[in-house]
Amino acid sequence: MNEFKYKGNILYCEDVSILDIVKDYSTPFYLYSHRTIVDHFLKIKNAFSAIDPLICFSMKANSNLNICKALLNEGCGLDIVSGGELYKALKIGCPPSKIVYASVGKTEEEIETAIRKKIFSFNVESIPELIMIDTVARRLKTKPRVALRVNPDVKPDTHDYITTGTKEKKFGIDFKTAEDIFDNANKYSNVSIKGLHVHIGSQITDVEPFITSLKKVLDFVEKGNIGLEWLNIGGGFGIMYHDESAKTAEDFARAIIPILKARNLKIILEPGRFIVGSGGILVCKVLYVKTGVTGKNFAIIDAGMNDLIRPSLYKAYHEVLPVAKLDTTSLVYDVVGPICESGDYLALDRSLPKLSSGEYLAVMSAGAYGYTMASNYNSRPRPAEIMVIDGHVKIIRRAETYKNLIAGERIIKELK
Amino acid sequence: MNEFKYKGNILYCEDVSILDIVKDYSTPFYLYSHRTIVDHFLKIKNAFSAIDPLICFSMKANSNLNICKALLNEGCGLDIVSGGELYKALKIGCPPSKIVYASVGKTEEEIETAIRKKIFSFNVESIPELIMIDTVARRLKTKPRVALRVNPDVKPDTHDYITTGTKEKKFGIDFKTAEDIFDNANKYSNVSIKGLHVHIGSQITDVEPFITSLKKVLDFVEKGNIGLEWLNIGGGFGIMYHDESAKTAEDFARAIIPILKARNLKIILEPGRFIVGSGGILVCKVLYVKTGVTGKNFAIIDAGMNDLIRPSLYKAYHEVLPVAKLDTTSLVYDVVGPICESGDYLALDRSLPKLSSGEYLAVMSAGAYGYTMASNYNSRPRPAEIMVIDGHVKIIRRAETYKNLIAGERIIKELK
Repeated sequence: MNEFKYKGNILYCEDVSILDIVKDYSTPFYLYSHRTIVDHFLKIKNAFSAIDPLICFSMKANSNLNICKALLNEGCGLDIVSGGELYKALKIGCPPSKIVYASVGKTEEEIETAIRKKIFSFNVESIPELIMIDTVARRLKTKPRVALRVNPDVKPDTHDYITTGTKEKKFGIDFKTAEDIFDNANKYSNVSIKGLHVHIGSQITDVEPFITSLKKVLDFVEKGNIGLEWLNIGGGFGIMYHDESAKTAEDFARAIIPILKARNLKIILEPGRFIVGSGGILVCKVLYVKTGVTGKNFAIIDAGMNDLIRPSLYKAYHEVLPVAKLDTTSLVYDVVGPICESGDYLALDRSLPKLSSGEYLAVMSAGAYGYTMASNYNSRPRPAEIMVIDGHVKIIRRAETYKNLIAGERIIKELK
Repeated sequence: MNEFKYKGNILYCEDVSILDIVKDYSTPFYLYSHRTIVDHFLKIKNAFSAIDPLICFSMKANSNLNICKALLNEGCGLDIVSGGELYKALKIGCPPSKIVYASVGKTEEEIETAIRKKIFSFNVESIPELIMIDTVARRLKTKPRVALRVNPDVKPDTHDYITTGTKEKKFGIDFKTAEDIFDNANKYSNVSIKGLHVHIGSQITDVEPFITSLKKVLDFVEKGNIGLEWLNIGGGFGIMYHDESAKTAEDFARAIIPILKARNLKIILEPGRFIVGSGGILVCKVLYVKTGVTGKNFAIIDAGMNDLIRPSLYKAYHEVLPVAKLDTTSLVYDVVGPICESGDYLALDRSLPKLSSGEYLAVMSAGAYGYTMASNYNSRPRPAEIMVIDGHVKIIRRAETYKNLIAGERIIKELK
């Protein structure tokens, strides 16, 4: 379900015509549906209610303050991966008891701040990191909670870059090492190692890899005698970008709950894309329609790979829809941006109603890993983020200006 | 030639020990050698002096104001690709007569500003764009200069994403269409079409593709009767990242000059990477050394794909060197960042002296398409840019702070 639907020939966000929004705001911009995002959170919450998990939204998917706040208001926690995300989480008043912190490269400063703020737990990725947390904790005279992130060596069917639970990746600790750590927990007496974490990747549309990795983890729990209090089963639930037959929250829950229910463990979930992916789109304008050298049609738009890099970086598919369906003739287009490289495209070989310059297009399912990965490449200011909420159209992040591009720069006297 | 060399076991930038620089500045940061950058500009200038070209530095490679200013001070012009780059170029006092503007997606506003500022010329990528420039020029009652960018259908040996002169790409106009435009120049009476532009891609280490495309263009010039005044032969000269046998400026000049010399044409060159690529490095710190599940060694550093995306995006090779060679034992490492995806690496399977946490590494040849493509992914503030100039260490862009991450955001009342 998402709230970007046609009414007649016009694409709407909830009950607001996007054709009305583009009258007031310059393209390109990200547009979010508050109702869609909250609905997806509630879908997970309800589906998993039998085990009453702590759901921590994975901020790396979308760390806009208002989007995170909307989820906090529904009782959601936050899964952070950096000091910057911790800063944002605290800025919007997230209770530290609902913050979990993962990353293979937490710095000493980041660890210290997170300990001082009393987050729920660290997901620990290596022994050197465990030693660092233990050392900082000793200095601060506290005993933070940590979960060991285990690497179950399970390969889901997703892009290699977002596969994280196979043995050749940088993530997690193998079971043997984890066992050694639990057996020698007294070596790390300043931390409380009462949790396990497993996360095998992102955009996983099948249930099976989750079950396989969970079973491996639970086998490990049963063999050891590790006094486990909580199990963080990560995120990675996939969404439908194109022709994936993505599972629903209930599908995932139906398979996962029976494995976990009988155990007396607090469960943590870290969904990101599943909550925000289809809750946002990138709205852009056709600048020129060009017939290429070979007769190929190019729709040159005012958004580029600096705004949304997923197609270039992951060869990701995003559906492209006209905001107003003006023409019934179909043509095949490459939808490309203004950036000076061939990698700058948003969609290739797409059948679309015949386009003209000045028309608006919507790049769908851009709510996750969209704005968070945006850059100023080609000196392009990053776009605004806008949210439809309760019938209102609200700017939740202003578009950058040229002046923003040079903040932090000044000509040194040697070059004046 | 570049000015990042070991003296004893310590890596220097010009005459400054990088080990001294990391005492004063937090990693990660980009570090540039002013002398290297100027030297590379002068190498091109001298190599091509027989045809006295206008050399316009391609700002998309590195648009730091101080770097561009350093080149302006040597007489260089600027090749821009957006309104943002025009803004920066004017900010540092670049004479508009030394600015050329390429991009398949120039907006009406960008075109208007560039016309008003009287830049040297537009490189026009399509008929609809030509019509737009003509329309704006008529309204402004001026007659701007334009060059038609022709697409010669020549494939250089480089990454597909930075190949721009083959017929299936979005760039340029085919020769037949260009001929039609020149034959019907009276249809575009508000522009002066006296130039041609050709640019076949980036990071091209061989001379041959340049010659092939130039010959095609000159054949076209000779067959038509187009009253050409200038020829912009683009950029794309490659550099040595690894084991490429990249040509020198003199190699390129020796092959290109004879073809152009006899003709009475002003020549424009647009080098970017060649000038700044090896003039900058990314300095980072090892946070943790981790042995992976399979026994693989990971050096987890404090820089990631948000700082330098070329390895992830283009599978680009960047040499990695220890700032201080401390150990003579060699081990093979994946050098990876702290970002939560497997695509976050800077170097794979590299033999390096045995590393420890706290050591500093230099990611070499990061001066082009480094900072310009940086993002805040994982809510990571972008790094500082530092330049060594005349023995001084100067910050030329401050590192971002957490506060910068949320500039432009505020919680709307509906969510408070």
